[in-house]
Amino acid sequence: MMQMKLARRMSELKASEVREILKVTERPEVISFAGGLPAPELFPVDEIKKVIELVLDEAGPRALQYAITEGNPPLRKWVAERLNRQYGLSLDIDNVLLTSGSQQCLDLAGKLFLDEGDLVLCESPTYLAAISAFRAYGCRFLEIETDDDGMVPESLERALKENDRARLIYAIPDFQNPSGRTWSLSRRKALAELAGRYQVAVVEDNPYGELRFEGEHLPAVKSFDKDGCVLYCGTFSKIFCPGYRIAWVAGEADIINKFVMAKQATDIQCNTLAQMSLAKYVEMYDIDAHIERIRAVYKKRRDLLLQTMDECFPQSVRFTRPQGGLFTWVELPEGLNARDLLVECLKLDVAFVPGGAFFPVEPRENTLRMNFSNMPEERIIEGVTRMATKLPGRARAQL
Amino acid sequence: MMQMKLARRMSELKASEVREILKVTERPEVISFAGGLPAPELFPVDEIKKVIELVLDEAGPRALQYAITEGNPPLRKWVAERLNRQYGLSLDIDNVLLTSGSQQCLDLAGKLFLDEGDLVLCESPTYLAAISAFRAYGCRFLEIETDDDGMVPESLERALKENDRARLIYAIPDFQNPSGRTWSLSRRKALAELAGRYQVAVVEDNPYGELRFEGEHLPAVKSFDKDGCVLYCGTFSKIFCPGYRIAWVAGEADIINKFVMAKQATDIQCNTLAQMSLAKYVEMYDIDAHIERIRAVYKKRRDLLLQTMDECFPQSVRFTRPQGGLFTWVELPEGLNARDLLVECLKLDVAFVPGGAFFPVEPRENTLRMNFSNMPEERIIEGVTRMATKLPGRARAQL
Repeated sequence: MMQMKLARRMSELKASEVREILKVTERPEVISFAGGLPAPELFPVDEIKKVIELVLDEAGPRALQYAITEGNPPLRKWVAERLNRQYGLSLDIDNVLLTSGSQQCLDLAGKLFLDEGDLVLCESPTYLAAISAFRAYGCRFLEIETDDDGMVPESLERALKENDRARLIYAIPDFQNPSGRTWSLSRRKALAELAGRYQVAVVEDNPYGELRFEGEHLPAVKSFDKDGCVLYCGTFSKIFCPGYRIAWVAGEADIINKFVMAKQATDIQCNTLAQMSLAKYVEMYDIDAHIERIRAVYKKRRDLLLQTMDECFPQSVRFTRPQGGLFTWVELPEGLNARDLLVECLKLDVAFVPGGAFFPVEPRENTLRMNFSNMPEERIIEGVTRMATKLPGRARAQL
Repeated sequence: MMQMKLARRMSELKASEVREILKVTERPEVISFAGGLPAPELFPVDEIKKVIELVLDEAGPRALQYAITEGNPPLRKWVAERLNRQYGLSLDIDNVLLTSGSQQCLDLAGKLFLDEGDLVLCESPTYLAAISAFRAYGCRFLEIETDDDGMVPESLERALKENDRARLIYAIPDFQNPSGRTWSLSRRKALAELAGRYQVAVVEDNPYGELRFEGEHLPAVKSFDKDGCVLYCGTFSKIFCPGYRIAWVAGEADIINKFVMAKQATDIQCNTLAQMSLAKYVEMYDIDAHIERIRAVYKKRRDLLLQTMDECFPQSVRFTRPQGGLFTWVELPEGLNARDLLVECLKLDVAFVPGGAFFPVEPRENTLRMNFSNMPEERIIEGVTRMATKLPGRARAQL
């Protein structure tokens, strides 16, 4: 038995609930609304095979050698230009660092900004793997009051005023994980303005922004960032494939340069072949057409999930109606515990993620997260129908 | 200009000297003994193309989806069995975590073991990217007296006795980076014994162990680890290719489990396709035959480097005669500064890494590191010959 002394932070670090549950859901008979897996049937397998072959033919061993920490220049250029188009920014290649998934952006942001005891301000609820990433730097959390339009600016400003250890604001403005909520335009402006006024870094995590099913595409918080406080994190995981582990962080060149130094000390660089073949993919193929296909499939699944929950769940159970992304958020009546419900549902081979772990300070155990991107349609209907049998009260459709 | 407050650790983090120099050496006319790049002409490009194609045909989208943090099971099994054969260990799959290069092993070890102000005990000199990785956790360093046989046990024991904040011992026993030195058998035993007695973790970093040109293959420090204190880090970067970013850490299951949790919070997992295609490669091809080819080429280059230095360098310049690996270590006469020499040599398009940065506490500026794996033979001769013109004193061959 180990007696070596571990760092203090390790006592806070627990195995991710999502990942542990994923292990249960590996059994093929389980209908899983847990996890955040994209639909694998949409991955462009043939195109990937083609671009890898081309890159290995053209670049040979260079595609397998060490490369610069910043990341593949043509791919960074592509990312910068796309963000400029989408969000009215004026980014250049020096404003972009490629990272090993968005999770690494979070880890590096923790490394850059957080001393032990510093404070992270986040939505309530917030993404649980972000909690793990930041917690590894010994920080504390403050949940900012959050409603259907995003963080409440008055609550955020009070937190900034009262806490001189506030070092990072973490937000997912588009189709938030876990709540599925999307921030309003005015809240986005307010966040950028407050961050600038108090000179606190914002990590704007936007893995799902491209997956909008309806409504108007909104500017990013980064679009209103006059003071250079916003770090914009995007990823290829949900619009290409997650196994490649290629994401990015974009921001002011001097801050990105600090991220580069931190990444250098962390893992030197991302997989060279993955970067080069992805650069080739966006050059050769129409990723927008590909994203359109993903959107259509996920929209259908979301519609079906919401419709079936509308029909089968009792009226006392409430849930969000996300305009995009991968998740909806369910609130059970007060007093019910989603962990207990999960135990019951697993007996019926249905899984989801209990919501408590998404609150770093005050867990609300009557909540849960449902993913709709990964299950085919008939299993969505079957899964929700089974879940409903474990929920107290009569179904809405029967009322 | 950024006014956001950064974590204290960031004031310590500088851009890696090696990486910065690599940028200079991108000019093709430069003869570079800097960097630690493997010879790209030896990368198995065709085999890699083949195994990627097979994996994408057989596993399809599964090769592009999220996968478990621990890493691909068949590949971990292969690593465990190979280490068992090589070092008389009895590792199982649960004793191995795949990491994004050895650099990530170092980063995760820092995360696991180091609170701010804790002490890392290391060789003198030691690997500079390990200094960066650990420094990011706010640690201090103590250089243990080191001679041609490795760390001096009496010096190590004194350090352990006198410093109750000692949390990590970092060592590269085979063909050390930067010195090229190899630890004796008795020093390996002594390290394992002392670590166990004082219950301090050892990171045994062994990226070059397979690249022995002569002499007897020695057991690892891990081979003598009765107390479960040794974490053994190995990598595919030097025996396959570095661009894949696949390495591993092996140790007691309960410690590896902590590494898994830390990796989960850091970047979730390594590239899925890289893991699966590498598993396929070691299954289909004879990696030992491949390593044999690498060894033969590097041995020839080392021989040529040493022979040319013997002939051209003045007698006042001393250097190590490594039995394997990628580097030799050069000591200039006291009073000479290798940074000044580098400036002179760059005028002749010859590069190396000045040694000062390899000492975390007491830089010795009259030292430098020479890599011999990356340059073809005629350029090695030419580069050393040019360097010699900048060194004071008569060449040995002329004496």
